[in-house]
Amino acid sequence: RYGYYGKGDPKVVKLLVCNLDGCLTDGRVYVNQNHELMSYSLRDLDGIQMLQRKHVEVRFLSERKISAALLDTLKLPCRVETKVSNKRSLVERWMAELGLSSWEQVAYMGCGYSDVECLKLAGTGGVPADACVEAKMTDNFVCKCNGGGGAIQEFAEHIEQSKESRKRKFGNEKQP
Amino acid sequence: RYGYYGKGDPKVVKLLVCNLDGCLTDGRVYVNQNHELMSYSLRDLDGIQMLQRKHVEVRFLSERKISAALLDTLKLPCRVETKVSNKRSLVERWMAELGLSSWEQVAYMGCGYSDVECLKLAGTGGVPADACVEAKMTDNFVCKCNGGGGAIQEFAEHIEQSKESRKRKFGNEKQP
Amino acid sequence: RYGYYGKGDPKVVKLLVCNLDGCLTDGRVYVNQNHELMSYSLRDLDGIQMLQRKHVEVRFLSERKISAALLDTLKLPCRVETKVSNKRSLVERWMAELGLSSWEQVAYMGCGYSDVECLKLAGTGGVPADACVEAKMTDNFVCKCNGGGGAIQEFAEHIEQSKESRKRKFGNEKQP
Amino acid sequence: RYGYYGKGDPKVVKLLVCNLDGCLTDGRVYVNQNHELMSYSLRDLDGIQMLQRKHVEVRFLSERKISAALLDTLKLPCRVETKVSNKRSLVERWMAELGLSSWEQVAYMGCGYSDVECLKLAGTGGVPADACVEAKMTDNFVCKCNGGGGAIQEFAEHIEQSKESRKRKFGNEKQP
Repeated sequence: RYGYYGKGDPKVVKLLVCNLDGCLTDGRVYVNQNHELMSYSLRDLDGIQMLQRKHVEVRFLSERKISAALLDTLKLPCRVETKVSNKRSLVERWMAELGLSSWEQVAYMGCGYSDVECLKLAGTGGVPADACVEAKMTDNFVCKCNGGGGAIQEFAEHIEQSKESRKRKFGNEKQP
Repeated sequence: RYGYYGKGDPKVVKLLVCNLDGCLTDGRVYVNQNHELMSYSLRDLDGIQMLQRKHVEVRFLSERKISAALLDTLKLPCRVETKVSNKRSLVERWMAELGLSSWEQVAYMGCGYSDVECLKLAGTGGVPADACVEAKMTDNFVCKCNGGGGAIQEFAEHIEQSKESRKRKFGNEKQP
Repeated sequence: RYGYYGKGDPKVVKLLVCNLDGCLTDGRVYVNQNHELMSYSLRDLDGIQMLQRKHVEVRFLSERKISAALLDTLKLPCRVETKVSNKRSLVERWMAELGLSSWEQVAYMGCGYSDVECLKLAGTGGVPADACVEAKMTDNFVCKCNGGGGAIQEFAEHIEQSKESRKRKFGNEKQP
Repeated sequence: RYGYYGKGDPKVVKLLVCNLDGCLTDGRVYVNQNHELMSYSLRDLDGIQMLQRKHVEVRFLSERKISAALLDTLKLPCRVETKVSNKRSLVERWMAELGLSSWEQVAYMGCGYSDVECLKLAGTGGVPADACVEAKMTDNFVCKCNGGGGAIQEFAEHIEQSKESRKRKFGNEKQP
């Protein structure tokens, strides 16, 4: 639990924050006269639940206004915050709430212009294959999958593999 | 009916079990305020019916809770079991019911973490192109098609071709 | 109107018959508790209308039962026959109705097992990129587009280009 | 504001006109017994709003009849004109309304046969990757993205980059 890297090893991801629009969903809005429709992939749910079993907190945020009824039907196994105008300050509020002192412990996945700031701050960042150019240029993990098509699962597996390879490398030194 | 390989030739597929989520469907859940929506491809129905004409029993399973009304609208020409928590034990119950003694006679198609066990057991296994890494690493037939986009038809044709090429090789020796 | 190739030049397409499922649509059935949903591409409508302006009759057939209300909402600018069990005999009835004596004057686009017979008979045949293997092996024009994603427009442009290049080659000889 | 290229620099885009069908949407019409459904990508909204912040007027046109209720649910942040039979004359009316004297100041994105004329006239033109051949052959910017899948965002970024690179090249000469 302590060792070479200081206690808590800040590089171990404790919180994954993800843009709901374009990362969990494919960023499409389907509308008809009455309703808005959204879609997401069960593969991404698989990835989210895998991280949760490893004690990573997973949360979603969205800039858009999404009706409570629609959110309810989504049946997501994690917290979702909508109508977020300042993504950075929300994530920092969440970090405080969870007792995390550093962005190094945060994994962030985003795809739009408004995700660029958090993508630069987060210790571990990821973007779907179809993210905007500016988001891709933040020098983070670029998924092979598009948003809504497995990008979150792919990023979750990337987070896990980084942890494993870090354990293999530094495991002994971290023992007291 | 009997010969070199013992009677019943265990490698001939008698039962195809398929994860509904991500194999029959593209693994997407479409929701609006009231309803959940699912989609599948008619190409896969074509493949299922082709196998049925060759006397292969085809069944679907899903971990998810899917409403009876929704299942009804799907109009699938085969049995579907939902809310399956232990996939292996369900398949083994089905094998007993059909008088199959060995996993060798079972073809299994799956795409998620929870399909890995059955993919390792089945005599013939298949995964859609967009299955999770762990499922792909079970050393089975990897489709070119994604789940929901023809993967079942592709796997069905693979099953048939294996049978044909086996007949060409061993046809004579199996005659009494 | 007559010449080297007999009157009527059988290779000039007078009728385009198209499998609705998997050619006009992407072959997906979307269902929720009450309804079935289908989708098609406006690009394909563009292609259909281009052919109609050149006096090619365009018709769709489907093996499936599709409700009259759903067909109505599709607003297709051409005739659609559903619940077709014998595709060949329907097309031959249409040929008789239109005074066409030969399959050479028919263009056929299909994607499934049940389209194979007509694909072999038609003077001009086409299959979407995601057609089943058997349909693709009928030695016809294979589109780059998938069904529901522009395959009909692509095939329509192929029909037109064949006509143009035939005119350039044989135009003079066909004059009396 | 004036200099080498005459005042107003006609190459600076003041108006972006975009075919709604096949550029904003993926050109698919989803129907069930009661309703028509359309979908668009939030990535494209991102691109539209980026241009608006740079004072480019963005407008959509469509040949189709789209119900007022459906348009309302789309919640687009810009003007949409439907049932357009003559695209060129509509754009020219818009140019007059905005005080633009030349097509050089107009960016046009389209994908179908009926967009070809405007694509040839516009100072800056763009087509989605899945546009029809005739639209692609107008010698304009061809997106990597398909219609409905980020093509507008890609084109918006192309418009911005052209402006930037033009500024870098000619910036000094344009100073009085």
